[in-house]
Amino acid sequence: MEKVLASIITIGDELLIGQVVDTNSAWMAQELNKIGIPVTHRVAVGDNWDDIWEALDQEAKRASIIFITGGLGPTADDITKPLLCEYFGGKMVVDQPTLAHVIHIFENILKRPMIERNAKQAEVPDVCKVLKNEKGTAPGMWFEKEGKVFISLPGVPHEMKGLMKDHVLDLLPTYFKTGYLEHQTLLTYGIGESFLAERIAKEEAALPEHIKLAYLPNYGMVRLRLSAFGYEKALLQHEVAQHFEILKKAVGEFLVTDKDESMETVVAQLLKKSGSTLSTAESCTGGYIAHLITSTPGASAYYKGTVVSYDNSIKTNVLEVSEAILETDGAVSQATVKQMATKVREIMQTDYAIAVSGIMGPDGGTAEKPVGLVWMAVADKRQVIAKSFQFRFDRQRNISLTATNALNLLRMLIVDNHSTIL
Amino acid sequence: MEKVLASIITIGDELLIGQVVDTNSAWMAQELNKIGIPVTHRVAVGDNWDDIWEALDQEAKRASIIFITGGLGPTADDITKPLLCEYFGGKMVVDQPTLAHVIHIFENILKRPMIERNAKQAEVPDVCKVLKNEKGTAPGMWFEKEGKVFISLPGVPHEMKGLMKDHVLDLLPTYFKTGYLEHQTLLTYGIGESFLAERIAKEEAALPEHIKLAYLPNYGMVRLRLSAFGYEKALLQHEVAQHFEILKKAVGEFLVTDKDESMETVVAQLLKKSGSTLSTAESCTGGYIAHLITSTPGASAYYKGTVVSYDNSIKTNVLEVSEAILETDGAVSQATVKQMATKVREIMQTDYAIAVSGIMGPDGGTAEKPVGLVWMAVADKRQVIAKSFQFRFDRQRNISLTATNALNLLRMLIVDNHSTIL
Repeated sequence: MEKVLASIITIGDELLIGQVVDTNSAWMAQELNKIGIPVTHRVAVGDNWDDIWEALDQEAKRASIIFITGGLGPTADDITKPLLCEYFGGKMVVDQPTLAHVIHIFENILKRPMIERNAKQAEVPDVCKVLKNEKGTAPGMWFEKEGKVFISLPGVPHEMKGLMKDHVLDLLPTYFKTGYLEHQTLLTYGIGESFLAERIAKEEAALPEHIKLAYLPNYGMVRLRLSAFGYEKALLQHEVAQHFEILKKAVGEFLVTDKDESMETVVAQLLKKSGSTLSTAESCTGGYIAHLITSTPGASAYYKGTVVSYDNSIKTNVLEVSEAILETDGAVSQATVKQMATKVREIMQTDYAIAVSGIMGPDGGTAEKPVGLVWMAVADKRQVIAKSFQFRFDRQRNISLTATNALNLLRMLIVDNHSTIL
Repeated sequence: MEKVLASIITIGDELLIGQVVDTNSAWMAQELNKIGIPVTHRVAVGDNWDDIWEALDQEAKRASIIFITGGLGPTADDITKPLLCEYFGGKMVVDQPTLAHVIHIFENILKRPMIERNAKQAEVPDVCKVLKNEKGTAPGMWFEKEGKVFISLPGVPHEMKGLMKDHVLDLLPTYFKTGYLEHQTLLTYGIGESFLAERIAKEEAALPEHIKLAYLPNYGMVRLRLSAFGYEKALLQHEVAQHFEILKKAVGEFLVTDKDESMETVVAQLLKKSGSTLSTAESCTGGYIAHLITSTPGASAYYKGTVVSYDNSIKTNVLEVSEAILETDGAVSQATVKQMATKVREIMQTDYAIAVSGIMGPDGGTAEKPVGLVWMAVADKRQVIAKSFQFRFDRQRNISLTATNALNLLRMLIVDNHSTIL
């Protein structure tokens, strides 16, 4: 049996001149994968009639379900709707439920007068099924042609996601005989991609044809993913699970988690499970570690806060790092991060603390302390552990690497303290 | 004369299952635009021989320059290199300079023994020009066929960027008669997309055929972009500049900046120009405002730090918000953010301070204080201004919107204080 494949067409000049990074496609692909519909192709085209038309023709040859996002706004550069109308041979009509919804949004939510341009959002080709957009004024549209389904969605991420959840993801499996996609992912830390490949070469070679292994290196960590497609769910799950267990064993001490989750999620779960709390003192990461931790809903249960001491005076005034240490050892030093971790843990009254201080670049380096040098410390009630790194990248990457490594240092300390319960 | 067009093919299963967001394409498109090479098409395909081959055939029909990123790693799922070798009819040979470079990286930088798999990185098709990758082991490759240029680059962002800067961007204009692309972008705040379109309808209608206007709404702000392509640089610049001035006037009081820059960059420049310093006290944004500000190199000149008081005890202990206020008004209130802003400004001894407190969701809301409610305040030595918002989105979007709006509130205060010098 053939797989039911999907294709994604994203529309907008902003994608081709690089003003906007496309995050929609990744989310859509994840959700489609969950219901057994692999994405085979993704295309980005500009707000150009011929290019959009050609993309529709081409993708219809490749896939059974064609998603089209973007180009549905109320302004003149948005040509997707009239184009789709012509492509599917319809004529534009006012959709009364959509008009009522647009009026409702303006009267009751935005509390602004509606203008002609907004009412236009309610015009749709008469050959589509209209999908109600609870979070905006541009409706989704569902077309069918020669056994293929075409779904047009707005490019605004939360509107697109709402429409997918409300009208698309549950419906597709009833239209198509979708198969089953099984993914299992693990995260490693502390071993390079090639060495990891060497280490698990035997296990990789033993994988059957239909189970694929992928390496996804990122910020000093490597993610390994097993994926397989089939129609017998139970059998497939069993097979992948077996090989995944073998892979985990081969990875050994480098394993961080056997789920598809980030380092900050792993740390959050360890804190929750062990009933511990955390505070942070950040210098060079400027609040990024705090941002990662608080991106998870419910973080207030284990995270108390951070002091970002971007200026040295905050290190002495708020974190009470001694001026003597700042003078003799400097702000980027083992002694400073140890004091930062100890003090913030005291001030915020938490079980654990993280402190980081470094030079992220591009400026600020010296011969003795070059750009990329970072000191970090983790503290609990018994000890403070400090470690230094020398990164060699651009500012953003150095910040990310510092955050990930500091979270990993904390992870190891918590695991060590609670080895019996975790 | 025909435009010289580029096309980008990104390779990797991780793109199609949504495990990775493609940020490379946006960066490449921006850089190519700067040298007058528009990107006409972007395609993402999996690690699949036939799909990659077909993409090469198809994109060669559309564009003169075809970029291929990804699939060059040392592991078995990376098939791009052997495929390119066959596609261009070559055979694999060891490139001695690359081998020397790989050995150098392992001996002097990684300080780890090199394995056979790493040495393989030095094998390249004998029909390509090898581009040295200063930041990694996988070299770039430059192929030519029937007047088209194909450039293969690793998918790791900083390696791809290094290769583009070192070997590609300067060279392309000598190969092709590239034209000139002119973009001008302005940022508005406080007016919806449709109302803005209505307001500038006359100016938009008066644009000549070859100057395009695009609307890019994002987080309560709308970016407007004029773009034009031509061969006479001076004339083109003059035309676009003229229409841009007219557009700016029409936008009027909603203008934030007439450059393609973010709200945090605008605020950073205002602080620098006015010689002022800033501190922040964040609750619901969990360090995100600090992260935005410190993402700009040199932020230490005007940014002193933040206290993230995710837990109420930090609000009282570190920020000295009175317990009475927390009890009567609550953590998310006008009185609390006013005290937070005042106190953090005192503690960190800065000219300005921002404070935010809110409920980002999905949990934690009540009938009186629903999810999405945010109070924010900005303070200087004379005053504290507070404002509340009711957002209606998911957690990440609420955090972003809070940060942007708080930065905008500060922007208005600084502009107000320094209207004569700014």
